Amino acid sequence: MTIEVDVTIKLKRGVADPEGESTKKALNLLGFRDVRSVKTAKTFRIEVKEEPEKGSDEEKVKQEVEEMCRKLLANPVIHDYYIKMVKNPKS
Amino acid sequence: MTIEVDVTIKLKRGVADPEGESTKKALNLLGFRDVRSVKTAKTFRIEVKEEPEKGSDEEKVKQEVEEMCRKLLANPVIHDYYIKMVKNPKS
Repeated sequence: MTIEVDVTIKLKRGVADPEGESTKKALNLLGFRDVRSVKTAKTFRIEVKEEPEKGSDEEKVKQEVEEMCRKLLANPVIHDYYIKMVKNPKS
Repeated sequence: MTIEVDVTIKLKRGVADPEGESTKKALNLLGFRDVRSVKTAKTFRIEVKEEPEKGSDEEKVKQEVEEMCRKLLANPVIHDYYIKMVKNPKS
């Protein structure tokens, strides 16, 4: 059995988002003049093996994923991150 | 008033995700041995100006965003996309 977790990495407020800016400009040029802003984010869907014998449950997995964010996935200077357990792993 | 829409761009099943693969390997090397797979996705949060005088409502905005995906944001050969209206724009 596996547990799936979605980690969303967003730029902190005030940090420049050149990709979002370019996307906004491109959309405006394509005729979508109502687009006011575009902000980008990155999502990692992480599949973690569940180990009932080691007593791994959702709370423990969440803590582990939080550690992954601190150690590798996010840069605390410019990123905020959000962790969400995926209820229905098929989606 | 503006409407916010989240567009999530995922790789289709079977399309190689080298960034996810590298992330998985890095996590394993960092000691997170329970990580089975990592898949990446990209999210655009698009802020669209609402124009009540032109009769723009959620349904219309959704159609417009769908067109943006087809024309610019997603590559139909390798991407699936999901459009979600943001209920609480503060989040």
